[in-house]
Amino acid sequence: MTTIAILGATGYAALELIKILLRHPNAEITALTSREDTRSAELVHPSLSGRLNLSLENLSPKEIAHRSECVFCCLPHTASAKIVPELLNYGTKVIDLSADYRLNAVDVFETWYAEKHPDPNRLGKVPYGLPELFRNQIINTNLVANPGCYPTSAILPLVPLIKTGLIEPTDIIIDSKSGVSGAGRKPKLTTLYPECNENISAYNIGTHRHTPEIEQIITAASGQQTHVLFTPHLTPMDRGILSTIYSKPIRQVGQNELLETLRRFYQNEPFVNIVEHLPSTKDVSGTNFVHITVRVAGNRVITVSAIDNLIKGASGAAVQNFNLMFNYPETTALI
Amino acid sequence: MTTIAILGATGYAALELIKILLRHPNAEITALTSREDTRSAELVHPSLSGRLNLSLENLSPKEIAHRSECVFCCLPHTASAKIVPELLNYGTKVIDLSADYRLNAVDVFETWYAEKHPDPNRLGKVPYGLPELFRNQIINTNLVANPGCYPTSAILPLVPLIKTGLIEPTDIIIDSKSGVSGAGRKPKLTTLYPECNENISAYNIGTHRHTPEIEQIITAASGQQTHVLFTPHLTPMDRGILSTIYSKPIRQVGQNELLETLRRFYQNEPFVNIVEHLPSTKDVSGTNFVHITVRVAGNRVITVSAIDNLIKGASGAAVQNFNLMFNYPETTALI
Amino acid sequence: MTTIAILGATGYAALELIKILLRHPNAEITALTSREDTRSAELVHPSLSGRLNLSLENLSPKEIAHRSECVFCCLPHTASAKIVPELLNYGTKVIDLSADYRLNAVDVFETWYAEKHPDPNRLGKVPYGLPELFRNQIINTNLVANPGCYPTSAILPLVPLIKTGLIEPTDIIIDSKSGVSGAGRKPKLTTLYPECNENISAYNIGTHRHTPEIEQIITAASGQQTHVLFTPHLTPMDRGILSTIYSKPIRQVGQNELLETLRRFYQNEPFVNIVEHLPSTKDVSGTNFVHITVRVAGNRVITVSAIDNLIKGASGAAVQNFNLMFNYPETTALI
Amino acid sequence: MTTIAILGATGYAALELIKILLRHPNAEITALTSREDTRSAELVHPSLSGRLNLSLENLSPKEIAHRSECVFCCLPHTASAKIVPELLNYGTKVIDLSADYRLNAVDVFETWYAEKHPDPNRLGKVPYGLPELFRNQIINTNLVANPGCYPTSAILPLVPLIKTGLIEPTDIIIDSKSGVSGAGRKPKLTTLYPECNENISAYNIGTHRHTPEIEQIITAASGQQTHVLFTPHLTPMDRGILSTIYSKPIRQVGQNELLETLRRFYQNEPFVNIVEHLPSTKDVSGTNFVHITVRVAGNRVITVSAIDNLIKGASGAAVQNFNLMFNYPETTALI
Repeated sequence: MTTIAILGATGYAALELIKILLRHPNAEITALTSREDTRSAELVHPSLSGRLNLSLENLSPKEIAHRSECVFCCLPHTASAKIVPELLNYGTKVIDLSADYRLNAVDVFETWYAEKHPDPNRLGKVPYGLPELFRNQIINTNLVANPGCYPTSAILPLVPLIKTGLIEPTDIIIDSKSGVSGAGRKPKLTTLYPECNENISAYNIGTHRHTPEIEQIITAASGQQTHVLFTPHLTPMDRGILSTIYSKPIRQVGQNELLETLRRFYQNEPFVNIVEHLPSTKDVSGTNFVHITVRVAGNRVITVSAIDNLIKGASGAAVQNFNLMFNYPETTALI
Repeated sequence: MTTIAILGATGYAALELIKILLRHPNAEITALTSREDTRSAELVHPSLSGRLNLSLENLSPKEIAHRSECVFCCLPHTASAKIVPELLNYGTKVIDLSADYRLNAVDVFETWYAEKHPDPNRLGKVPYGLPELFRNQIINTNLVANPGCYPTSAILPLVPLIKTGLIEPTDIIIDSKSGVSGAGRKPKLTTLYPECNENISAYNIGTHRHTPEIEQIITAASGQQTHVLFTPHLTPMDRGILSTIYSKPIRQVGQNELLETLRRFYQNEPFVNIVEHLPSTKDVSGTNFVHITVRVAGNRVITVSAIDNLIKGASGAAVQNFNLMFNYPETTALI
Repeated sequence: MTTIAILGATGYAALELIKILLRHPNAEITALTSREDTRSAELVHPSLSGRLNLSLENLSPKEIAHRSECVFCCLPHTASAKIVPELLNYGTKVIDLSADYRLNAVDVFETWYAEKHPDPNRLGKVPYGLPELFRNQIINTNLVANPGCYPTSAILPLVPLIKTGLIEPTDIIIDSKSGVSGAGRKPKLTTLYPECNENISAYNIGTHRHTPEIEQIITAASGQQTHVLFTPHLTPMDRGILSTIYSKPIRQVGQNELLETLRRFYQNEPFVNIVEHLPSTKDVSGTNFVHITVRVAGNRVITVSAIDNLIKGASGAAVQNFNLMFNYPETTALI
Repeated sequence: MTTIAILGATGYAALELIKILLRHPNAEITALTSREDTRSAELVHPSLSGRLNLSLENLSPKEIAHRSECVFCCLPHTASAKIVPELLNYGTKVIDLSADYRLNAVDVFETWYAEKHPDPNRLGKVPYGLPELFRNQIINTNLVANPGCYPTSAILPLVPLIKTGLIEPTDIIIDSKSGVSGAGRKPKLTTLYPECNENISAYNIGTHRHTPEIEQIITAASGQQTHVLFTPHLTPMDRGILSTIYSKPIRQVGQNELLETLRRFYQNEPFVNIVEHLPSTKDVSGTNFVHITVRVAGNRVITVSAIDNLIKGASGAAVQNFNLMFNYPETTALI
């Protein structure tokens, strides 16, 4: 049994994390934190009624470390990197769901996030929490940078095709469609029901912060310097990301060879399914699975992937990392 | 041509009002007000792009009256009654979409709204803006109290049956289901997309402020002292109210007699359709129509009504009142 | 390990059943049947891609019994009762999700379902699969009648209050709101997306087939002859039933006493949560939990309950019954 | 006053057409046809209750022509071209909403639609009903080919930029997201509510029939041979198409020059709004407006357009064409 604290427990990713961990036979949630909200977990998340008898607390790093062997950090960027070093010092393992430890270069972080990084020296040394690409590093780490939701949906289909030299790594367009939960639980006009319902729109074209994360990780995993144009869209649904990705083949290649390349690359992966049909976000909703397929049309290779942004795109991946870091079977609580 | 000011122009009712008035051949919008937001109408409501070249302004009553012959007041309750008296003094006609002038008794207002009424002496003298019941009073007034959305959906089906002595006026249950736009455009956790989507819940059971409004108006229009139990529900849709209303027949009565009573009562009404099928909110969405039907089952008379909460439940009714007050054909801009 | 066949595997209840059973450590799905669709489970339900390597088959009762110790029967009414007797003869245990064995009286079945019952002699001898009320009978049966979705949402809040004499059993109005998945997976105009979305409507007022089921079970469980008026509504969401239930108190009673009565009645139940806030369908979505609360207003006792129609209202309850019938911990695979 | 028949009156485009024409001061609907459904318009479309006293009829071309000066043809492809020649012979003007007269080349039609064309000789002589590009031809025709919904959303933003030599005409990716109403009103598993809700997916990548239509019209309007890769997506909403279009600049060009080019091109168009913000489908829902903007990122020019697929993408455009063909002000009934 591993004791667990969840920092920043008021949001949607934290709620999904709690629900998954309640099914985990080796995890015991022992602390939930919030700086402002100290109500019971049931009041903050009524779906937990009768299921979790804890209140949120405003705890110091020392108190957190005293209570837990593993911390899931659901704080905003920079808030995370302010507390993580102290937690690691106390010997706690940390799974950080923020963007703080995903990028290797301080200047890239500070350019895209427009804030000073609180723990710059650790950048470049933290494994990126995509077990499908970095499993061995994750097993041996005390701190993992849990991937962004959009990056997961883009990196997984692209890496095998770039690494095997089938597509050009510098002429890639990622057109992603995300459910609204990805925008968080803080009330904003833009995520109000009557603004989002019956509506789809693009946002942050070419300027979304997940762009450098996607480029860095694909480059690292494929060995090919990669550039992408990334366009996210807000879609009228709670959950899910569908990424339609346009790339150019380097040589003549057919759908079967592309599918076969993907299948071979992920043949032992429990959560990646290479499918022949065009994926739907609903088919992976509430699960840690990724569905990926590929098409060839108009001199382009088009890959399409679907994930649940809160599960494989956040909390499910976090538990997958937890299982690896604590030597539990990787799929525990995730099927 | 009548010049028009809309006060409190940032919300959903104001937006619908603007759209309807842009189709009105005799209306010219000359002022939009807001105390805090002074951007262009296009920026506040992007759906108006290229359609209305006005900015929101923080105007005094005098300035408003100088610019407009008719004011549509979309301010919150008590804010409305603070400005309406001065506007009337300047000779402007006012259609008030707030609750300030709907109730006759100051103590009832102050009990249910928990605030002091700013203009108590006018209460009881302002026509209630349901033309189907109070047309003659509306034609001759300078100030009309535009009805609440839920009350419109409940009053219209009930008045004919109570007035003709077919159902008991004191044992009535109104179970209403409303779209989320009824909760306004101010960001709140409860109306965030991921909180409302895929969700239905009741709220304010027996304590909603529309309860005394429903009771007062039915009592006035039917001549029978009426009591209701009113339960609103938040439904995952933008628009629409469906009210399922349970009452007791006073004598044995069949569906046909009930339908015939309703048809006769509303035979000359352009916006009330008595239908045989069970109404759907979608069938009246974006329109000023009301669909009403009735069933008999289990010793109960069940009436079902559907309206668009923002049109017949707010801005459409307001323009219907405007047409009456300024002697335009009642259906102008509303078909 | 128990081998399991699912009959009628193309629909939504079957899909949920499969997903739950894939998490069940003691269940192995060995057969899926359909009379017409013999594609792989992955093609019929793409969300099962990579998770279940079975094809649907058109199997005889003998073949089914040969392959499985337990059958979950998701066939339409009367189709179920045509095959169940033979399955029982072969020694297979059966959990029937159809309506065929829920009613005790043949004439009531034939009146409401307008078809001849294929197995009339068994009626009245089959336990009703609500473990919260009939656990002991379920433990010892070979055949259980899995409850209807609406009945579960109505019976659970009402039985304790009727049984303890707090509310009148013959003057009850059940106003229920259901997600669209309750209408099944067969294409129909009425459940097409553009017909249901942004729409709510009542249907089958006073004539829905779940009416006699609700009355019979409450009468049986409370010892009080019960009559209800039941009005279902089609709500624009996939999942969930919210039932707002209006009853009359027999004596003066407050909210606290009512809540306490409910809490005491269900104090040992793992899936029934008596909550103080007004329940939301979203809070129980994807779970086997029931949320129930109660209010007093306008001389009425109003109970509100929320379930997931496909889980506690169908497949979750079925697995709960399975666990009881095969002596597994009751909550296995359901947390 | 112009008398109007609508052929194939059971679908969503026909319903929108009827609603627009009911607001048109110079249009009188005199016939609605269907081969199979001869119920009243109110029963087929309950939203027309009390608004249109007509029944659907199975009429011959002669009867149709006898009753109407203008026919809006909402029949499926090839059904349209089987009846249009006879209608034209009788002197009726026709606005054809099917794909039958959009393509110039018979072989292209027969390749993409996999059926023999019933009226091949007329191909290439019928104006394409986008008044923004072909107004003069539309004014003088007896038959117009009303544009497809996706093509309208793609052609309008692309033509000005290709015609002015700002972007390459042969390396264009159109990633479009459509509401479900675009798939029609015939019940299908793929458009069932529980299949579409909370779901987004791509379909017909590179093989959608609107591809040659887009290419032909842009080529014709811009004078540049154009090739596109078109990917449609099914989005969980009733209405709307958002097209995110990726092209390559021919020379260095900034957002302002691109916006200015679009503004100049459409400066006199009543329904095309070039906006600075990123468009939302909701902002044009229920209207005949098009919102278009443009961005420059990652060496690509990205145009984004939003329309209502049933209005500007079908019935609104049809009435715009009707106004031109019958010499009514172009915006009549469309504001």
